Formats: sequence, C-alpha cells, structure tokens
Amino acid sequence: MPEQALVASALGAWKSNLERADRVFSALNEEQLQKEVAPGKNRLIYLWGHLTAVHDRLLPLLEIGPRLCPEFDGIFITSPDKTVAQLPTAAEIKSAWDEVNSKLLAGFTSFSPADWLQKHASVSAEDFAKDPSLNRFAVLLSRTNHLAFHLGQMALIPKPA
Amino acid sequence: MPEQALVASALGAWKSNLERADRVFSALNEEQLQKEVAPGKNRLIYLWGHLTAVHDRLLPLLEIGPRLCPEFDGIFITSPDKTVAQLPTAAEIKSAWDEVNSKLLAGFTSFSPADWLQKHASVSAEDFAKDPSLNRFAVLLSRTNHLAFHLGQMALIPKPA
Repeated sequence: MPEQALVASALGAWKSNLERADRVFSALNEEQLQKEVAPGKNRLIYLWGHLTAVHDRLLPLLEIGPRLCPEFDGIFITSPDKTVAQLPTAAEIKSAWDEVNSKLLAGFTSFSPADWLQKHASVSAEDFAKDPSLNRFAVLLSRTNHLAFHLGQMALIPKPA
Repeated sequence: MPEQALVASALGAWKSNLERADRVFSALNEEQLQKEVAPGKNRLIYLWGHLTAVHDRLLPLLEIGPRLCPEFDGIFITSPDKTVAQLPTAAEIKSAWDEVNSKLLAGFTSFSPADWLQKHASVSAEDFAKDPSLNRFAVLLSRTNHLAFHLGQMALIPKPA
C-alpha cells in the first residue's frame, strides 16, 4: 500500500541519520568529545546530550511512553553549552542515547500509517481539527531534519586518526 | 487519503528548510558570502552554489525536466571550495537557485503519491523491482536532510547586524 511505502521511507531516513550520528559519537573518547564544532560553538558532548534530550521528548510527544531522561532538558536544552558546571559523562549520555533511541524505534515501527497521521500530544484536538498537518509524521520528519542539522556541524570536526 | 497527508508533510518539510536557506543567503552581500562556516571550511557562497547544483540534479533524477545549470557541477560538486579561480557571482547563483527551486516545486506539487513511489531515474527497473525503496519519495527526504545538514553549518555564522 502506498502509505506504508511512504512511512517506510521516512523511517529509513530517520535510521540512517541516527546511525550516522551514532558512528560519530561512539568513536570518540571523553577528550575528543570536548571539541567545539567551530570556535566558541557547541562541544560534541553537548550536542550528544542535546540530541538525546530532544529525542527523549519524542516519547511522550508521540505517546510512545514516559520520558527516560527528563533531567537532560535543563542541561542540554534550556542551558547553552558551557554554562552548566558538570555535564553527565560520555558513558552516561551514551547509555541514555541508546535507551531512548531504542525505545523510540520500537514505537516507530509499531505505528501504522493511520497512527502516524494522529495528532501529536502538544496540539489540542480543536487545533488539530483545523490543521491536520500537526501530526506525528510531521514531527518525525522535523526531528530527522534536526538530527541532520547537527550532523552537518559535527562533520566540520576532523575524524580521529 | 493517508498517502496524500504523508506526502504533504514531506513537502512541508522541504519548503520550510528551503525557505530557511533562502532567508540566510538572500540577506547576505558578496562580502558576507565569503565567510567560511568554520576556519578552513566551505564559504557560504560555495554552499549556495553547492545546494543549487544538488537541487538542479533532482530535475532529471525525478524526471521533472532537463537540468538548468549543469555547469555548476564542476564548480560546486566535483571541486572543493577554493580550488576554482572564479565562482559565479552571488547574483548568478541566486538566479539559478530561484529558477531551480521554482521548477522543482512545480514538479513536486504535480506528483501524486503513486508518482512519488515511482523509481528515480538513476535506478534500473530490475534493481527497483528488487528494492522499491529506491523511489522518488526517498530522494525527496534525503535531499531535505542534505539541505538541513548544510543549514546547520550555515547557522554557525553570526547573522549580519
């Protein structure tokens, strides 16, 4: 059915961007993760936590389940990099990143096309009736683009030898 | 119909990323376009030409029409930045960018969901039969992510006052 093929393409794009980010982050040690993507800009360790927090917020937004690391918001979303004294360690971020993305993927793959076209949790039924584009599928595409946006920044740092 | 809503979401994501790029590029003069996104990395003017060339390639790839600026490939795809002596001017790039994206959007909005699920022009009928994910919709999502990837780099440059 066409709607299933369209959803499969979007899931494929999510997965390939996620794997690309995973390859970058997982290859780096604590010291390498301290590098900034450009002078004065975010460090890789911050971007890793930021992406984890943004992905974690998808769990309730898409009604897949409760958040796994809400404490990341204050560190990686509402605070800019280098304003919080002590970030979680790379191992802690990696553990949250793996758990969040694994739970998300299980939810994503359980959705039917009709599920993807349901409203997301931050829109009221009334607003959704007026604008059905405020659906879960649009959120998936938007967060895939958000991931690609930061991948572009991460790509500015030379790969470790 | 669900397939039309799914396609509409993907077109919305394409358009919002494109408008975002357009706002950045169109606000800059020739001198500002010479800035590198990070030390030693691509200049904004190069990224503008690069995105124009990549989008231009979508015209034949999605069978919308012939290319409008094939001469951009040698400058903005196969050559890295700062290896070609004379780039097109900002006005020339803007003109190609506008024309390419306008023609693409006209093609995109004329496609039905079934059109989006057709094979793209670089895959053989035989390979497409084996892997129907090699369709035009996957190309649209991939190029939207490509655009977001470079938007992330462009965002590292402070906006002109």
